[in-house]
Amino acid sequence: MKLSIERGALMKAVAQAQSVVERRNTIPILANVLIEAEGDTVQFRATDLDVEVVDRAPAQVERAGATTVSAVTLNEIVRKLPDGALVTLSEDGASGRLQITAGRSDFKLATLPREDFPVMASSEYACNFAAPAPVLRRLFDKSKFAISTEETRYYLNGVYMHVADTEAGPRLRCVATDGHRLARIDAPLPEGAAGMPGVIVPRKTVGELRKLLDDDEMEIAVSVSETKVRFATPNITLTSKVIDGTFPDYSRVIPTGNTKQLEVDASDFAKAVDRVATVSSERSRAVKMSLDEDRLVLSVNAPDAGAAEEELAVAYGDEKLEIGFNAKYLLEIASQVDKENAIFLFNSSGDPTLMREGDDTSAVYVVMPMRV
Amino acid sequence: MKLSIERGALMKAVAQAQSVVERRNTIPILANVLIEAEGDTVQFRATDLDVEVVDRAPAQVERAGATTVSAVTLNEIVRKLPDGALVTLSEDGASGRLQITAGRSDFKLATLPREDFPVMASSEYACNFAAPAPVLRRLFDKSKFAISTEETRYYLNGVYMHVADTEAGPRLRCVATDGHRLARIDAPLPEGAAGMPGVIVPRKTVGELRKLLDDDEMEIAVSVSETKVRFATPNITLTSKVIDGTFPDYSRVIPTGNTKQLEVDASDFAKAVDRVATVSSERSRAVKMSLDEDRLVLSVNAPDAGAAEEELAVAYGDEKLEIGFNAKYLLEIASQVDKENAIFLFNSSGDPTLMREGDDTSAVYVVMPMRV
Repeated sequence: MKLSIERGALMKAVAQAQSVVERRNTIPILANVLIEAEGDTVQFRATDLDVEVVDRAPAQVERAGATTVSAVTLNEIVRKLPDGALVTLSEDGASGRLQITAGRSDFKLATLPREDFPVMASSEYACNFAAPAPVLRRLFDKSKFAISTEETRYYLNGVYMHVADTEAGPRLRCVATDGHRLARIDAPLPEGAAGMPGVIVPRKTVGELRKLLDDDEMEIAVSVSETKVRFATPNITLTSKVIDGTFPDYSRVIPTGNTKQLEVDASDFAKAVDRVATVSSERSRAVKMSLDEDRLVLSVNAPDAGAAEEELAVAYGDEKLEIGFNAKYLLEIASQVDKENAIFLFNSSGDPTLMREGDDTSAVYVVMPMRV
Repeated sequence: MKLSIERGALMKAVAQAQSVVERRNTIPILANVLIEAEGDTVQFRATDLDVEVVDRAPAQVERAGATTVSAVTLNEIVRKLPDGALVTLSEDGASGRLQITAGRSDFKLATLPREDFPVMASSEYACNFAAPAPVLRRLFDKSKFAISTEETRYYLNGVYMHVADTEAGPRLRCVATDGHRLARIDAPLPEGAAGMPGVIVPRKTVGELRKLLDDDEMEIAVSVSETKVRFATPNITLTSKVIDGTFPDYSRVIPTGNTKQLEVDASDFAKAVDRVATVSSERSRAVKMSLDEDRLVLSVNAPDAGAAEEELAVAYGDEKLEIGFNAKYLLEIASQVDKENAIFLFNSSGDPTLMREGDDTSAVYVVMPMRV
């Protein structure tokens, strides 16, 4: 194998690939990236056996071939090379070394045989469709905060992507919950997605996927089977196993009969919650919301540290209500709001509360109250 | 006590004070800041019993008085208040609470009695002088990287500030070393500093002092006794115990007979060292310098990971030399160089090496070689 590539293109491809490599590996080759050069392209493949990413970049390939080297070391070297440098990667197949040269720099990295690198088996995908990057970005960005970190509830350790029937017709929907709060985000159903099996996309895959979604103009090719999901741009293919479990019936958690409506400036609300939570102890960061006509008082009472109270002018016309929430959960859902106002719908101080962004019902959040 | 103060002024004073507070305290009141209001000034005092900082800010004092509250909580609250807010602090002396109000925010923080707050005893200072902030900044910034972190060698856990007699006359000098490398930085002797006792300024004090030195126009009042050192601006007074020990006779460590001179572009050198060190293992990051006429080859050989080599065009006219250094130490001294070129003076591969910045002899660095 021998190829030359501009440092910027190389850095982008290697950085993306190495980010799926786990820092601690019991299987040595999983610390490596598989470099394959052919035609006018070099591709970098990395995996943790659950997620695989392949990054392609244009290169001058003098001699086709493939090898594997430490992803972290390769990434560090490329990052430190001067901007604009022409980098040559070469390997003679006998020395067990990959040579990297750029200007007067010369590196030789230990290789492991390409045959030992575990390439993820290709699958038949039941469903293929294309979705604009901003649509997928919104679906996952607004739901991922609610992913559970409890390993015993592994079926909640991801975002449940599926097709949902709504009054307005079928939607592409992402849901995440940890039992304390829930996010349900809808988008128009892309053409070809109608028969998609519902899949739980693991937390790590959601994180890696995010890096493919920055370009507003990009169309993402999505492929889904019962066991795998794939997201692809012309240069990057991200393939992931999905979580083998059943996502709970979340619809029963979403209250439909909440009638007490509070409308509040989302940014003012988030700042006020953040301030009053300052005096609460780390463990039980409970914030009390006291509602009266067009008036919201946020308060925290921590016997050791002190107390905090803040008043907000709001739109509220129902009966008096006192209800407590975990401050972190309130802050997180308030910070999802892109629109000016957040609308809360309460039932009683013991029931789940619903929040949405203004009149937009395509994103709804549920948060459980706590005693205060 | 009752006072009003603009949030920006309050934030600056509180932030500086709380930074000396240790996160873990066995003595509860050490987590607090002492607030004292009198005349048209409020001052915030914090200490860890070794370092004390007092920050003053102008305030509208309605009722003089003093109390103490959690430094971290106060800082968090003030940080989160909206910019430009007028903040009122009040305390009735009976409730055991400090009330903080700003707009519609209202906080009550638990207090501890001011009488329990350990105020550092004032001392007689043998020596008082003034030094421009940039001069002190250079003295400490260029030496602090070499401070030892070994607790058993407590007398090396700081910067030794003293008066040194040089060929060019007396100088204000800062020295730090950990036995592997050493930095010796000189500045013109300020008026009144001639009789100053040599003191070892602890690492933490050096860090806190740095925050007083950002303003190029500021004159810093320095006071030194055998046991304490004080640095003051009109708004901030930083007082610190000095390390009770004898700084070793460093002059014997600084080689005087090194004749093999290498001149190298400091930035190119640092980048090249950084690159070749990438392949070395974390523990023994040894970089070999191979010198030949006007040519320097930096190399690393790590049997497991691979090898790296980089060539630099340099000015060197002496005999061939191979010498190894810890990569981190080489990087650190190279990054001290403000001038274009670094000059290394070698003796042999087993002897300490001297480095300085161009022809400037007011800052010299010594680094011990290691076998490669």
